[in-house]
Amino acid sequence: MRHVDVLIIGGGPAGISAAIWCKRLGIDCLLLEEQSQLGGQLFNIFNEIIDYPGMRTKNGIEMQREMVKHFVDMDCLYEVNTKVLFIDERFKTVKVKKQAKEQEIFYMYLILATGSSQRKLGVPGEQQMIDRGEVYSASADGERLKGKTVAIIGGGDRAFEGAHLLSSKAREVYLIHRSTRFKAREQYVERVISNPGIKVMTDTEVTAIHGDRHVTSIDLESKNKGYKSKNLLVDAVLIRLGVAPNVELIKGKVATAQNGLIVTDEVHQSSNPFIYAIGDACTTPLFSSISSSAGQGTIVAKHISSLLTES
Amino acid sequence: MRHVDVLIIGGGPAGISAAIWCKRLGIDCLLLEEQSQLGGQLFNIFNEIIDYPGMRTKNGIEMQREMVKHFVDMDCLYEVNTKVLFIDERFKTVKVKKQAKEQEIFYMYLILATGSSQRKLGVPGEQQMIDRGEVYSASADGERLKGKTVAIIGGGDRAFEGAHLLSSKAREVYLIHRSTRFKAREQYVERVISNPGIKVMTDTEVTAIHGDRHVTSIDLESKNKGYKSKNLLVDAVLIRLGVAPNVELIKGKVATAQNGLIVTDEVHQSSNPFIYAIGDACTTPLFSSISSSAGQGTIVAKHISSLLTES
Repeated sequence: MRHVDVLIIGGGPAGISAAIWCKRLGIDCLLLEEQSQLGGQLFNIFNEIIDYPGMRTKNGIEMQREMVKHFVDMDCLYEVNTKVLFIDERFKTVKVKKQAKEQEIFYMYLILATGSSQRKLGVPGEQQMIDRGEVYSASADGERLKGKTVAIIGGGDRAFEGAHLLSSKAREVYLIHRSTRFKAREQYVERVISNPGIKVMTDTEVTAIHGDRHVTSIDLESKNKGYKSKNLLVDAVLIRLGVAPNVELIKGKVATAQNGLIVTDEVHQSSNPFIYAIGDACTTPLFSSISSSAGQGTIVAKHISSLLTES
Repeated sequence: MRHVDVLIIGGGPAGISAAIWCKRLGIDCLLLEEQSQLGGQLFNIFNEIIDYPGMRTKNGIEMQREMVKHFVDMDCLYEVNTKVLFIDERFKTVKVKKQAKEQEIFYMYLILATGSSQRKLGVPGEQQMIDRGEVYSASADGERLKGKTVAIIGGGDRAFEGAHLLSSKAREVYLIHRSTRFKAREQYVERVISNPGIKVMTDTEVTAIHGDRHVTSIDLESKNKGYKSKNLLVDAVLIRLGVAPNVELIKGKVATAQNGLIVTDEVHQSSNPFIYAIGDACTTPLFSSISSSAGQGTIVAKHISSLLTES
């Protein structure tokens, strides 16, 4: 069985930073990434990155390129296209699959840098829309959405802020939320409700997204309002349901908070002393950033190094 | 009186990151730096920096240049050559001095990014040696110290590691420590004691460093061994007494740990809810890094932003 001192799951900024630091500290380390490229959520940043001290990049891809170059230049060990199927925390092994081949890896310390994912509606047509690249930023895509009819789905800060930002650009903005209660800050809600350019539809669920080459309409359903499958013509859909940490692999094996985040101490150790978590798997969206993820990767590597040297 | 929402004391990586993020989040913020340039301890890094994810620089100056460029490009507000004389945490004001002029600044939130300093011997000749640039890295300056007689002062990991590293390069290595007990890890101590190229002198204090254009000798004193002012010919002195956080300004005003570090919670708030600490003022040398300092700057700015938006 393959054996490594430190196994990192996830190749976003947090995992990359932990791997660079493990290498720097002389720790035998392997990083596993499910996708075909390292970078994680950097691929979802389409705007300029102005908040990583010392480095400004046009977008996430450019940041990804620099981070991966650094990682590769330092000869950090990694495997892409490698899915972790199972973590056996009692025997400290991880079962992974690369193409058709399965193997087990024994770890001394495990670092979960699995990130988070945008919550999805889970309705027909949604994935096709994403795959066609119809993914918008309310702050950066004002020009692209000028004169269009836009539906924003969600009830949190980002949904309300998006509606507010686009109301001056788009022809019509619908804010659609399945409940009548909003998670968003009161001042955000008030600003949207008092804006005549935004139609707020509560108690309403989206059941399908239609369109072949681009979005043309959505289906809506409201139990309380007593209708099923009302069709609404729209040109764009922005899904703003928030993010959820990717913690399925470790559920029930380490302590998690009510919001799903892995609970860690100040050195990012989880409730299992051989398992650490860094980045968006343990950080609320409010505090999430490339810079704090990188910082957490550093701290974990340094802490593990101190443990390995002592032993 | 000048008023700012966020006042940052200290312009190293932690302070720079906090300022960049404050700007990013639209917070009214001012950074104060005592020295004539921003950068803090980056000026003391003479080796390649390989551990800041995404960016590799030849040395600290190059990293300093990139960080300051980023900071200035973002129009972050700052004052150099500005010494903080006094923090009045009850009235939330700070008294500062720039050249001969004193002024008071009112803050809503204060971020201490005051860093740490290498502990000094405090003996004649020491500052002149530092000012002449006779500051060495045991790992990077092996060639510069080849064939020389080197004295390393201290009893911790860095002193012992330095002695070990230089023993294969230097002509003679003295490890001089004022006590007979060492803080360094046992394995480090054993490796040095069993090395015939290193002379360990315990119970010995350095009382002076001599030399006009470069170090030529040091004076030693040992109460237990009963001698005073023994002179030892050396070509170089490496002071490895550890670092101490720069917390004089805030002593007694927020909780500090036994090691002097400011105690903070996970969002880097101190025991006073209007005072935060980031970087080496609150981080043990073990976990200190540019990357974790930058990450802490981000988190503090995001936390303060959430408080300012709520209010």
